[in-house]
Amino acid sequence: MAGNSYGTLFKITTFGESHGIALGGIIDGCPSGITLDFEAIQLEMSRRKPGQSAIVTQRKEPDDVQFLSGIFEGKTTGMPIGFVIPNTNQKSDDYTHIKDNYRPSHADYVYDQKYGFRDYRGGGRSSARETASRVVAGAIAKQILPTISINAYVSSVGPIVMDKSYKDLDFSKTESNPVRCPDEASAVIMEDYIREIRKQGDTVGGTVSCVIKNMPVGLGEPVFDKLHAELGKAMLSINAVKGFEFGSGFSGTAMKGSEHNDLYNTDGTTKTNLSGGIQGGISNGMDIYFRVAFKPVATIMQKQDSLNNKGEITEMTGKGRHDPCVVPRAVPIVEAMVAIVLADFYLINKTYNKDF
Amino acid sequence: MAGNSYGTLFKITTFGESHGIALGGIIDGCPSGITLDFEAIQLEMSRRKPGQSAIVTQRKEPDDVQFLSGIFEGKTTGMPIGFVIPNTNQKSDDYTHIKDNYRPSHADYVYDQKYGFRDYRGGGRSSARETASRVVAGAIAKQILPTISINAYVSSVGPIVMDKSYKDLDFSKTESNPVRCPDEASAVIMEDYIREIRKQGDTVGGTVSCVIKNMPVGLGEPVFDKLHAELGKAMLSINAVKGFEFGSGFSGTAMKGSEHNDLYNTDGTTKTNLSGGIQGGISNGMDIYFRVAFKPVATIMQKQDSLNNKGEITEMTGKGRHDPCVVPRAVPIVEAMVAIVLADFYLINKTYNKDF
Amino acid sequence: MAGNSYGTLFKITTFGESHGIALGGIIDGCPSGITLDFEAIQLEMSRRKPGQSAIVTQRKEPDDVQFLSGIFEGKTTGMPIGFVIPNTNQKSDDYTHIKDNYRPSHADYVYDQKYGFRDYRGGGRSSARETASRVVAGAIAKQILPTISINAYVSSVGPIVMDKSYKDLDFSKTESNPVRCPDEASAVIMEDYIREIRKQGDTVGGTVSCVIKNMPVGLGEPVFDKLHAELGKAMLSINAVKGFEFGSGFSGTAMKGSEHNDLYNTDGTTKTNLSGGIQGGISNGMDIYFRVAFKPVATIMQKQDSLNNKGEITEMTGKGRHDPCVVPRAVPIVEAMVAIVLADFYLINKTYNKDF
Amino acid sequence: MAGNSYGTLFKITTFGESHGIALGGIIDGCPSGITLDFEAIQLEMSRRKPGQSAIVTQRKEPDDVQFLSGIFEGKTTGMPIGFVIPNTNQKSDDYTHIKDNYRPSHADYVYDQKYGFRDYRGGGRSSARETASRVVAGAIAKQILPTISINAYVSSVGPIVMDKSYKDLDFSKTESNPVRCPDEASAVIMEDYIREIRKQGDTVGGTVSCVIKNMPVGLGEPVFDKLHAELGKAMLSINAVKGFEFGSGFSGTAMKGSEHNDLYNTDGTTKTNLSGGIQGGISNGMDIYFRVAFKPVATIMQKQDSLNNKGEITEMTGKGRHDPCVVPRAVPIVEAMVAIVLADFYLINKTYNKDF
Repeated sequence: MAGNSYGTLFKITTFGESHGIALGGIIDGCPSGITLDFEAIQLEMSRRKPGQSAIVTQRKEPDDVQFLSGIFEGKTTGMPIGFVIPNTNQKSDDYTHIKDNYRPSHADYVYDQKYGFRDYRGGGRSSARETASRVVAGAIAKQILPTISINAYVSSVGPIVMDKSYKDLDFSKTESNPVRCPDEASAVIMEDYIREIRKQGDTVGGTVSCVIKNMPVGLGEPVFDKLHAELGKAMLSINAVKGFEFGSGFSGTAMKGSEHNDLYNTDGTTKTNLSGGIQGGISNGMDIYFRVAFKPVATIMQKQDSLNNKGEITEMTGKGRHDPCVVPRAVPIVEAMVAIVLADFYLINKTYNKDF
Repeated sequence: MAGNSYGTLFKITTFGESHGIALGGIIDGCPSGITLDFEAIQLEMSRRKPGQSAIVTQRKEPDDVQFLSGIFEGKTTGMPIGFVIPNTNQKSDDYTHIKDNYRPSHADYVYDQKYGFRDYRGGGRSSARETASRVVAGAIAKQILPTISINAYVSSVGPIVMDKSYKDLDFSKTESNPVRCPDEASAVIMEDYIREIRKQGDTVGGTVSCVIKNMPVGLGEPVFDKLHAELGKAMLSINAVKGFEFGSGFSGTAMKGSEHNDLYNTDGTTKTNLSGGIQGGISNGMDIYFRVAFKPVATIMQKQDSLNNKGEITEMTGKGRHDPCVVPRAVPIVEAMVAIVLADFYLINKTYNKDF
Repeated sequence: MAGNSYGTLFKITTFGESHGIALGGIIDGCPSGITLDFEAIQLEMSRRKPGQSAIVTQRKEPDDVQFLSGIFEGKTTGMPIGFVIPNTNQKSDDYTHIKDNYRPSHADYVYDQKYGFRDYRGGGRSSARETASRVVAGAIAKQILPTISINAYVSSVGPIVMDKSYKDLDFSKTESNPVRCPDEASAVIMEDYIREIRKQGDTVGGTVSCVIKNMPVGLGEPVFDKLHAELGKAMLSINAVKGFEFGSGFSGTAMKGSEHNDLYNTDGTTKTNLSGGIQGGISNGMDIYFRVAFKPVATIMQKQDSLNNKGEITEMTGKGRHDPCVVPRAVPIVEAMVAIVLADFYLINKTYNKDF
Repeated sequence: MAGNSYGTLFKITTFGESHGIALGGIIDGCPSGITLDFEAIQLEMSRRKPGQSAIVTQRKEPDDVQFLSGIFEGKTTGMPIGFVIPNTNQKSDDYTHIKDNYRPSHADYVYDQKYGFRDYRGGGRSSARETASRVVAGAIAKQILPTISINAYVSSVGPIVMDKSYKDLDFSKTESNPVRCPDEASAVIMEDYIREIRKQGDTVGGTVSCVIKNMPVGLGEPVFDKLHAELGKAMLSINAVKGFEFGSGFSGTAMKGSEHNDLYNTDGTTKTNLSGGIQGGISNGMDIYFRVAFKPVATIMQKQDSLNNKGEITEMTGKGRHDPCVVPRAVPIVEAMVAIVLADFYLINKTYNKDF
């Protein structure tokens, strides 16, 4: 198994290294008869791809998806959807300096320890380039769930926090700026900050928030596979993520029950939503909202000490083309993983409910 | 599936409702030949059980585990370990008032919506009583991992935060007070606060922190099944959890890469450990540490509005015997889920590594 | 994992040894709202239990099922159904002679080799007593599939073959004789033969045939999880099974395509049914029929050489109470496994089809 | 899920239709550090490919495998191995006549019923062309199991049965003739028979036998995932298979226990091997042998009635390039599936055994 699959009924399995021939994957369990919107898929890919703006890595990769199976006359057939994304713009010689070196806070060392050796080119499988395959699957998952809207956005960059409630935001603005922060005033400050950080040869972390609207009641399983537990795992599986909270999150721990409980309206909706749209692991139809923490990218353009495979400390400066801040490009990845999780629970929910 | 199983090779499946005949489970994949320490198992059960101190629920349940299979002459046989925990002290009539009522911030409403009806006695399957089965499995998992130490403890209760680094704590003190906070000064304040909250008929949230020491290098899978992603899912699957962060967590999002990177010592250890013991989803041998957010318990002993199944708002006051603060009893549950996750990865890691 | 679970959505996990405290299992994924017929469940148990007639083992075990969870007011709740079957009539001292001995054609030797030691009492986990848990799950699975009829019956005992087509049989006669052969003339001969074999202290094999009627079109998955592949695995997982064939089976290998092809009627049914109701791994609505081979029971009441754990050949005579022929009691087990397989595919099929 | 994956730890997922752009798959869980023999892989592919001799289909497809990931400097990295096999020689217009027609004993009808429509070109996903991906995975699985030998061969073609025991065969002769029957005298008769059948525009079935030598003791799980149950499922998942028997198989059902039991030698081997190398679901180190039934190919070059999607009977003659007898090309497929099953159990067995 080795953990390259996600999902039970709607299942994505991915393969590919940063500088191999191609990335790709197989989507198994996609229902038949869905007329795919290929432009929508490619749009998601272009939101994730490098080189899309001045504040992300300047690698140029078209990230064109080639579908090899499972689609006939524009519609899904119920058969597995195989796809590849060729790696067209590798500069492998950028990475020969890390062949024998373990970069700080990268996976180089643990890969060598676990597997005995590693594909060192561009981080190999540990590169966030792997997430391109997730975006393909997520874009298809979104088309299974046409009525649910999934809106991720950047809510902080380093110390700059956009502290508006999601209810006061206009998500149509998210794509209007390269930071993907729907609050345009904050976006400008964040963008300036990222430029400044890049000038220093440094990197910075941030947070991505996400809101899911128009949720049906009943998705999620009561015990281990709670809806928020799967969302949390899905988020924590994204490169550089260090934390996840939903609803009242960590701040809710300081509250009293009498403040935190969400009282009902007569239609089953609730007056407040500190629960974050999930009760006992199951969606209650209210908005689901959560926040994801991304650490600063480990590759910096400054001198720092690294370890070589002889156990010696050596000086190293990052090369290659890297993101000074990962959160703008993380927005479509967060949405993709949400869509994958929801599509799976949506299909599972067709099999257990009272209408049986 | 319905999500009542956890793990791939070391796998626990649980059953049971709060006020049914018994809880229990099956542990599949436990290696053979392990001489079980049954006292250690019962000790974990007594750490979780109700009625153990003045600040937790006063229900009296012995929570004795009866093993039915998979053990012969005191040793595991490699066969599935079936076990039951009889429910001896149900007072079901405490709960008849909720038969037709949906308590705020409980799972009552979503169960009725998803399944068409529900076992309303004491919350049924949504009760945290289900975690008793997890503690059994965790206690056995710990015995598969004798060299790894797992130490959870209460790090905040409501607004009272014990802000010492785990390195300055003496974990042998965790069990010395009913709050399970190893900092005794903080523990006293927390205990007083919980008593005060209970007097108000209210409840309060809190956080549990956990430190894993003596980790081998190499546990965890690189992509979807990252070690911290599984730990996060395991924590988020515990009742009342709203958030998870490890290593630098949310505070790391404000940092620069030049500050956040963990530089190496010549033996592969790192000078700092903002990574929290995991690189690229794989343990690097440094301490793993994380923090889990628990919301306040929803059942309060105050009047509040609820919804009945005719769509009417009705007034309701909590009955039954409930915890004013869940975190002291959550400590052994957090440890159990960590042990289950680590045992699984430990077995998985025997199959892929370089020594093949 | 260790392989004690079966199914994906409708999933049964079993535990228990022949002479432990109890057998049992957990059924996960049973839809909610099904009013269970408990008499029907107990009826299936009594069809499998020992001591039911003169030609099966004379052990007396009531095999009463105790349900511990997942059922409320007589209906399934969608929660996992835990159950136990206490072992009430173990005579463990019958088995002390095999503690250090490996009986021929039993699993004793491989268990010691694989696990380092074994629960030797009555074969432990390798005993067919484990199938009692399968019968419980199968009896519930049948209640998910009310319109499908599953009819297994004995079609041969040793050299005595009842060679009528299933179309010429009256399945209401299957339970009218202790052999469970619906052709009464054959049943008499078979019963006499079994008595004779038992008198010799010997055992004999046989075959069980099974017919599934009123199948919906569309169950089964096209590639690895073909409907007949899962049926085959399910049958081969039953103790003592050595072969499986469906439709034309082995005899079809000698045929030409022009003879073997099933031509269509205008309503999509076929004029012949050499395909056995399955095309490309998917049910086509015609009757599914298959045949299962059972070897003779290994425990005989005659002297034979065995091996002890010092590597010495020793003489041994079977003790305990064993079946001279396993097929009469295998009939309900075959039906149970069919029902489990079909219930799973039935649920899976709700998620992929064109009505999405 | 939809059933396009096989295995738990060593896991293959496949995609692709007969006349799509490409077939392919992902092998997840292959251990790291294995120096792959690519010629051995391509050799297996050429054993399966069309056009290799005068008695198989004359389609010309190079069936070149392109590996896209998981291999670095010739060795497996522990990462998923993605691969594609381009479809280079489709003649799709051969198949337009079946767009609206359901060919007898093909999957056309059930696909339309299950999925609402189908990729009708060449059978789409139901084509045995899918097995090319299995052969890739099997060829790699064989390299994980270097000491185990897997020898499949044709043991009957239509009514012509080669009835020698496998012990009297020289497996080095299997590849010496186009039928893949190691008994050269039988091979000549079989080949003549196939030529004659083809001349008639007809097809014929046959059996493939397989022998596994040098098995370690202990592979397989005791209950549902018995070694022979998985081998059976794996075989039954191959296109056109109607039956599976191992060891004494169906003929063993007529035997007495006193004849069938395999008595021990002092080293744990057995004097006879009617068990077929497996006791209680677990390998005992003796040779494993089994037999697989293949029905005649459904596409014949004769006129026969088919059904169209308006519910009308229409006359049809097979077009395209098809095999008159499938068993010669099935031999490498059988071996591939055996290798996949064994590699998985081999890895699983590293995690439970007594040396823990």
